[in-house]
Amino acid sequence: MAQYPEALSRLIRELKKLPSIGQRTAERLAFHLLNQPEEEVRLLSESLVELKAKIRPCKECFNFSEGELCAICQDPRRDRSLICVVSHPPELWKLERTNGYHGLYHVLGDLISPVNDVQPEDIHIEELMQRLQGGQVKEVILALDPKVEGEATAMYLARKIKPLGISATRIAQGVPIGRDLEFADELTLSRALQGRVSI
Amino acid sequence: MAQYPEALSRLIRELKKLPSIGQRTAERLAFHLLNQPEEEVRLLSESLVELKAKIRPCKECFNFSEGELCAICQDPRRDRSLICVVSHPPELWKLERTNGYHGLYHVLGDLISPVNDVQPEDIHIEELMQRLQGGQVKEVILALDPKVEGEATAMYLARKIKPLGISATRIAQGVPIGRDLEFADELTLSRALQGRVSI
Repeated sequence: MAQYPEALSRLIRELKKLPSIGQRTAERLAFHLLNQPEEEVRLLSESLVELKAKIRPCKECFNFSEGELCAICQDPRRDRSLICVVSHPPELWKLERTNGYHGLYHVLGDLISPVNDVQPEDIHIEELMQRLQGGQVKEVILALDPKVEGEATAMYLARKIKPLGISATRIAQGVPIGRDLEFADELTLSRALQGRVSI
Repeated sequence: MAQYPEALSRLIRELKKLPSIGQRTAERLAFHLLNQPEEEVRLLSESLVELKAKIRPCKECFNFSEGELCAICQDPRRDRSLICVVSHPPELWKLERTNGYHGLYHVLGDLISPVNDVQPEDIHIEELMQRLQGGQVKEVILALDPKVEGEATAMYLARKIKPLGISATRIAQGVPIGRDLEFADELTLSRALQGRVSI
């Protein structure tokens, strides 16, 4: 039984590292790419390099950004009295798509988890507390995964935020319990935002 | 509603061009890649460039190859009295995986199709006929899609091959009718190879 040429095997091997891409899918993608004009494959290849070269965390909120500050932090129309805290950028973008939120964000990078050895100092909590020093923020909305780690992180943050005279709320538990926030549909997320309650 | 940074949008746009990858999957893959070390993303990017730079058609059988001749055409253990004709390389690799075939191959590149304006001279038929001149080939196995275009191409080839005193066979119609050969399972393909009949 002959083996694929090395360059083809190599691409299949790299594609299989991606989430939900197995051997068969990787092969189909590789065969498809072999049939594409060189220009098309080059565009994909370049966009991968550019992704890592150009995108970095916003220095204010840790959202994905091409500049020092992300488009949201730079936008003068955003309500600067509101900060919505999420664990990762995909959740921020999911909330953006609900079109129901016009405040700022803060991306923690992870959730507090003694089991996985993630301590409060390992995530962007200190930077959040610094943003709250200015006196402009009136409310911090905690939009964290409705799971143990999300609840623990929300509780930890609420205890640090409330003494500053800033209200800490969390999105309503309309989001399905026990699943990653990233998989919630936009309507559920939108309702959860509206129904947020003080903690 | 904020937009993704341009470099992120661009990668999502490129990923969506791939078969069976929609907006959501492209976003998930892009977010995943953003979280990977630069080295990992570079490996994927490079393997794409390398694919197009290194792989070309074998000058004998038109299989994917890194050299002038593919590994199969170069292998002295292959039975040179047998040529199996397929339309595209993925089908060749599928047949290889059955482990039941040890002859050579010939990749046509397409199937004759008046509807899609594919004429016999548009595919590698002339090159196949040249390979049959040497007198070494005793049998040509036609492993073409069991659909109108595959049947038409098989008939066309059989009429050109038989006058040379070379037998033309086709793989048994054990393969499910009306579907692309690429989707057949290996056992079905293996049986179809064994049960090939003269046409």
